[in-house]
Amino acid sequence: MDSKTLKSAEILFELAYAEDIGDGDITTNNLVPPAQLKTAVMVAKEDGVIAGLPVAEMVFRKLDENLVWKEVKPDGSQVRLGDVIAEFTGTYRALLTGERKALNFLQRLSGIATYASLCMKEVEGLSVEILDTRKTLPGYRYLDKYAVRMGGASNHRFGLYDMVMIKDNHIQVAGGIKPAVEAIRKKVPMSIKIEVETSNLAEVQEAIEAGADIIMLDNMSSEMMAEAVKLIDKRAKIEASGNMTLKRIRKVASTGVDYISIGALTHSVKALDISQRIID
Amino acid sequence: MDSKTLKSAEILFELAYAEDIGDGDITTNNLVPPAQLKTAVMVAKEDGVIAGLPVAEMVFRKLDENLVWKEVKPDGSQVRLGDVIAEFTGTYRALLTGERKALNFLQRLSGIATYASLCMKEVEGLSVEILDTRKTLPGYRYLDKYAVRMGGASNHRFGLYDMVMIKDNHIQVAGGIKPAVEAIRKKVPMSIKIEVETSNLAEVQEAIEAGADIIMLDNMSSEMMAEAVKLIDKRAKIEASGNMTLKRIRKVASTGVDYISIGALTHSVKALDISQRIID
Amino acid sequence: MDSKTLKSAEILFELAYAEDIGDGDITTNNLVPPAQLKTAVMVAKEDGVIAGLPVAEMVFRKLDENLVWKEVKPDGSQVRLGDVIAEFTGTYRALLTGERKALNFLQRLSGIATYASLCMKEVEGLSVEILDTRKTLPGYRYLDKYAVRMGGASNHRFGLYDMVMIKDNHIQVAGGIKPAVEAIRKKVPMSIKIEVETSNLAEVQEAIEAGADIIMLDNMSSEMMAEAVKLIDKRAKIEASGNMTLKRIRKVASTGVDYISIGALTHSVKALDISQRIID
Amino acid sequence: MDSKTLKSAEILFELAYAEDIGDGDITTNNLVPPAQLKTAVMVAKEDGVIAGLPVAEMVFRKLDENLVWKEVKPDGSQVRLGDVIAEFTGTYRALLTGERKALNFLQRLSGIATYASLCMKEVEGLSVEILDTRKTLPGYRYLDKYAVRMGGASNHRFGLYDMVMIKDNHIQVAGGIKPAVEAIRKKVPMSIKIEVETSNLAEVQEAIEAGADIIMLDNMSSEMMAEAVKLIDKRAKIEASGNMTLKRIRKVASTGVDYISIGALTHSVKALDISQRIID
Amino acid sequence: MDSKTLKSAEILFELAYAEDIGDGDITTNNLVPPAQLKTAVMVAKEDGVIAGLPVAEMVFRKLDENLVWKEVKPDGSQVRLGDVIAEFTGTYRALLTGERKALNFLQRLSGIATYASLCMKEVEGLSVEILDTRKTLPGYRYLDKYAVRMGGASNHRFGLYDMVMIKDNHIQVAGGIKPAVEAIRKKVPMSIKIEVETSNLAEVQEAIEAGADIIMLDNMSSEMMAEAVKLIDKRAKIEASGNMTLKRIRKVASTGVDYISIGALTHSVKALDISQRIID
Amino acid sequence: MDSKTLKSAEILFELAYAEDIGDGDITTNNLVPPAQLKTAVMVAKEDGVIAGLPVAEMVFRKLDENLVWKEVKPDGSQVRLGDVIAEFTGTYRALLTGERKALNFLQRLSGIATYASLCMKEVEGLSVEILDTRKTLPGYRYLDKYAVRMGGASNHRFGLYDMVMIKDNHIQVAGGIKPAVEAIRKKVPMSIKIEVETSNLAEVQEAIEAGADIIMLDNMSSEMMAEAVKLIDKRAKIEASGNMTLKRIRKVASTGVDYISIGALTHSVKALDISQRIID
Repeated sequence: MDSKTLKSAEILFELAYAEDIGDGDITTNNLVPPAQLKTAVMVAKEDGVIAGLPVAEMVFRKLDENLVWKEVKPDGSQVRLGDVIAEFTGTYRALLTGERKALNFLQRLSGIATYASLCMKEVEGLSVEILDTRKTLPGYRYLDKYAVRMGGASNHRFGLYDMVMIKDNHIQVAGGIKPAVEAIRKKVPMSIKIEVETSNLAEVQEAIEAGADIIMLDNMSSEMMAEAVKLIDKRAKIEASGNMTLKRIRKVASTGVDYISIGALTHSVKALDISQRIID
Repeated sequence: MDSKTLKSAEILFELAYAEDIGDGDITTNNLVPPAQLKTAVMVAKEDGVIAGLPVAEMVFRKLDENLVWKEVKPDGSQVRLGDVIAEFTGTYRALLTGERKALNFLQRLSGIATYASLCMKEVEGLSVEILDTRKTLPGYRYLDKYAVRMGGASNHRFGLYDMVMIKDNHIQVAGGIKPAVEAIRKKVPMSIKIEVETSNLAEVQEAIEAGADIIMLDNMSSEMMAEAVKLIDKRAKIEASGNMTLKRIRKVASTGVDYISIGALTHSVKALDISQRIID
Repeated sequence: MDSKTLKSAEILFELAYAEDIGDGDITTNNLVPPAQLKTAVMVAKEDGVIAGLPVAEMVFRKLDENLVWKEVKPDGSQVRLGDVIAEFTGTYRALLTGERKALNFLQRLSGIATYASLCMKEVEGLSVEILDTRKTLPGYRYLDKYAVRMGGASNHRFGLYDMVMIKDNHIQVAGGIKPAVEAIRKKVPMSIKIEVETSNLAEVQEAIEAGADIIMLDNMSSEMMAEAVKLIDKRAKIEASGNMTLKRIRKVASTGVDYISIGALTHSVKALDISQRIID
Repeated sequence: MDSKTLKSAEILFELAYAEDIGDGDITTNNLVPPAQLKTAVMVAKEDGVIAGLPVAEMVFRKLDENLVWKEVKPDGSQVRLGDVIAEFTGTYRALLTGERKALNFLQRLSGIATYASLCMKEVEGLSVEILDTRKTLPGYRYLDKYAVRMGGASNHRFGLYDMVMIKDNHIQVAGGIKPAVEAIRKKVPMSIKIEVETSNLAEVQEAIEAGADIIMLDNMSSEMMAEAVKLIDKRAKIEASGNMTLKRIRKVASTGVDYISIGALTHSVKALDISQRIID
Repeated sequence: MDSKTLKSAEILFELAYAEDIGDGDITTNNLVPPAQLKTAVMVAKEDGVIAGLPVAEMVFRKLDENLVWKEVKPDGSQVRLGDVIAEFTGTYRALLTGERKALNFLQRLSGIATYASLCMKEVEGLSVEILDTRKTLPGYRYLDKYAVRMGGASNHRFGLYDMVMIKDNHIQVAGGIKPAVEAIRKKVPMSIKIEVETSNLAEVQEAIEAGADIIMLDNMSSEMMAEAVKLIDKRAKIEASGNMTLKRIRKVASTGVDYISIGALTHSVKALDISQRIID
Repeated sequence: MDSKTLKSAEILFELAYAEDIGDGDITTNNLVPPAQLKTAVMVAKEDGVIAGLPVAEMVFRKLDENLVWKEVKPDGSQVRLGDVIAEFTGTYRALLTGERKALNFLQRLSGIATYASLCMKEVEGLSVEILDTRKTLPGYRYLDKYAVRMGGASNHRFGLYDMVMIKDNHIQVAGGIKPAVEAIRKKVPMSIKIEVETSNLAEVQEAIEAGADIIMLDNMSSEMMAEAVKLIDKRAKIEASGNMTLKRIRKVASTGVDYISIGALTHSVKALDISQRIID
């Protein structure tokens, strides 16, 4: 797990610690001896793809720096019901106090990875990239996008700061796609890519002429997309966007677009069922 | 909204700001003039109960300190599809940059409040209290519990620090319910309540004798619960817990328990559909 | 020492460091070689009970992470004039720079523990608990309450946040004890206890009927307390409060109250005389 | 009150807030309406000198930014039993929640100022300056030294960082007073004064020759001090130190020393009795 | 000035405050009355381009929040010796305490802007963009790059995080330009541009085939650059780099490269001479 | 390197890290394996005096905590072109990512030390001390003053807080040198020295009578300085200041002043040319 994602998880863990543990787990700390060790496992209760084990490990390690942690199915692995995902030994206190927080992270991220892997299966053999969006829960941007990668898909921009995305409101203010692109080109560092949202072929044409790096085809029919791809003719990268469902993406991919972005990857996450069991 | 909940929202907003806005919304900031004002509304796209408007307001106010904000359906209000929830005027920049973050908070919290209000309707006329649990997303404890209150239900303990909850693991380590309660009584301030988890009538009896303040009936049948209520005979408060569904809670409440705790209140949140529209 | 108390001590140490050491002990750092080691002892200069050794250790360890620390009379121990309390080896610099700060903490906390132990001796054989109050110096709440426990007494609530304490002002605003208790019961989580302050038997009666968890008998005569105990008849816990002196507490305890709270435990602390001596 | 002292008080207030108020005064916040205003007074219950009113004001203002605050006896004023010290109007909540914290600060600081003023009276008409020491409670250095000034006395160095103080341990390591002074002179900025502790006339002589800026006469008899003053003959400033009691300081001052430092100014503080009363 | 640059300046101001003012300007605070107001001007002592006035304003406003500030020659303006740049009124204390810190910022940034404007004059009429580099003093990245823009030039990437720059070391590890570009393409978000450093035409050819977004011509002769431009033929953007002096850049620009990056823009800054004068 | 200087460097490093590395060196992290180790050297490209090696080491150690670092020419050493200054082994990633930041610090500080050593050579054999000034870049006060010491010169006051420096503005407000000195003497702790700026012999005379600890001779001719030295006659320390150039300082020193302060020591720094080379 890259350091920025792990750091983001640590910040969320600190919030979870403050709100859930605060001055201490007064039940466990007053009843369980500090030095008693136990071994536990994480077990999959359904099929899916795992993401978030380094976060779960971090949760327990924050509570017991001597934690022994062994991953059986590391992030990105396919699991089946009943598979042991990780086995770990630490203080009994850490295992009891950390359990729910570790699972909360792990189940959400594995849910995202599982859905992303389903999308990737749909477009197998095609050169399209599946992208996520900015529809992530506040505070979970890095984690959710990490899980997307674990499922085999790719990341769109991380936020409003690292890429220009010119939408209808911006175009209206600027007085057209071309003036919008020109105005912004002068103001951003040379490292920044410019994407323009379009909803018809006339706008696509204007975006090409404006020199957009990427052109988004927003809520277009597959037929219109195919025409747009032809019109653009490699002069810009192409992103298909808007109500992309599992069922539809193969057809969209076949139009020749470079990217398909799917809000549902992170917006409506069905947690993957995972449980912790103390085995010794 | 109480100050601790609002402060928690501000911390999450800061995370959202850092991850989504960072050094700035480079598209909007470079195309939309800073002083241009617009008016927008939040509109319900389905029936439900609203929670989180002060958080949405905070998001926009952080981006425009002169925001004019008017709540039509304040937190706790029932809304119907098409109802305007709030109307607000601020810089066009703030409305564009803040939109998704505001909606993310508002939709999640309204979803929780809506579900809580459904639970309350189920037990109308009975003296039972509906409680939430610790099954909240890391970082969202205060917000989720606030939404539960907006829906008319009540809060269980806030974390592992503000109440003793003796579970099977703890009992096993202590060598029984009685030794567990006695050991802990000496170690915590006199302000702390002690709850004991039980799964059969023998344990209930032991918990009574140990002087527990609250006895949890965990995963018991309604029949066993009724017996437990009789056995306890007002010597402790009683909480019913475990797989509490909307369908089942009225029957459980009829056994005479004081509280029913429902993980689903905050664990599996279906966001309430709400959208933002610029009207002027 | 529990982690929250130690953390509180660390914060106060940081303040002490900033105000006393700041950019460095320019005398010692410029004259004493960094690697020179010395051994010192803490010695009791009068009889008492020790509290705060982990804080003293922390002070020196912050200045020398390789400190060797041996406690001869750990926290809670009775000491006599001349007893060695702890012996430790560290850099000469750390011993010279840290001395006064370590003693300041240790002498105050040992003074509190000593006084608490005197109170406990007074009520030996009775089932009453001796409690502290909120009369602690700003910033020293956790440390002072820890010292109280080391002296054998118990802790009342930690602050205004973890228990409801309804006093005369609150009762007046609410329009009586009963409306006050009822109003607040709905607003706080189920984990919170409610105590009501009373100054005569009529108020005690009203508090019983309101269902208070604890009833405080404030500034009552021992005779009135005895009547109150009888009137309450186990329906609530009972706290005696107001001008509790060492001389009086045994008599008060004999009335059958559950708790006696004593402001003087932490309010007027006579430091226990302790000195540091370099022995090698 | 200078900004560094006030800032120090704010840090201690934050600690007090966290430990005493935390997530809120749940009794007051749930029973007293937020907008209800009240007026209160601080009243002296014994004679003394006031110090700390800006800190008390800060406490209430942190809880109610619209506080109206009027000082009748500002810091440094002599008061008599029954005098009103300050009158202030704010929310009832702020007055109830802040009372004890405000008094805690005010009573301690006024106690220090009162004692300092007694010392100053003792040496009236003499040119000596009365100085405090480093014997202040961890975290209270700035506040305590401010109170000393309010009582009319002066401040010694603030910590180990802003002046060189060569004591017996340092002299021993350096191999004498002269080598100690010479070694350190080269290592500190030219802005730093150097004081040397001496306990007999031979050491005084050596300190003079080493070019010390200030010579401390530690635990000397008044007779020896008189000789030392003669010996030094204005070549350095002179500080008398060690067991300085109210009774003794006039005699010590008469020996001609420039400064007398008194640990008891801040070490053993008898709080000045002050109470808060709501008057309307 | 954009918010990220101003925020960066505020952080540096805080460091400057801590190291230079600390607990206070003890001379000024003890001699100049707090309420006394004065008016001052900033005057150019040589010709140049101004940058950094919002930072100078911030310095004084931090010391006097009621500062009245009027810019006569805002950032980006050409000034001549003797021109008044800004006129401002604030407390005498703020003007005395803040003077040097304000000038330090203003002189450095104006020096950078002045040099950037000289570069721009050199390439007048050509379509090339002049870029800065990462050779900025630690902590001054945002400020220096802002000054570059005020002088009319543009910004290269801001750091190692917002663009891929594949240098000889990286190429060696990856086993060639092509494998390097391919390996990294899969790992970064789609928003990231990839630049490849080349030092001869063979490498240029390889970079074209690898699909680099930008090709850097490092330390090439103008002749080789002209050939490279021809070879690339618009398939990638082109940056000329390495020992770019004022004298040489017009010739380099004439080869048809898109960008010329100049370390000297920020690396060796000759401060613009500016002084503060109190006029009333 | 003393801890306050190193801590200051760490703060600047954190700024440099945030602005230059941020979420990571995406080129290096995605192409160079994390565990690959390399050895590099720092080499002098011109003659000079080294300062800042502990800062360079800190930079690399922050990026690789297992760094092996060997200093061949520690701070304060004279080096000649081609000398190896340090040799170190760490992860290839750390060496590539940290290089420029390490060099930036090292080159600036060595430049300062080199210039300071030139000044010291000029006054060889005389008892004068060469002092720096407050003309340091915001954020670099501690580092620059450290480099001055490495070059053999001494430090003037560190800021506005640790010494009184009464200038013409202050004298004017106070109504003369004597009232200024007297007013401030009462308000500062006894540890603080007082310096008075003078520009003619009348002012010097007034400063002597006011009892200034140090008298600054500001922008005086060498002849007037010689007279001032005679007039002061050891009753105060003497600092010469104003346009002190390498050429002039020996003559100034010969007048008998105690200190010469030179703004150019830190104000106009010519970086010492140093490069990093990977050798294995």
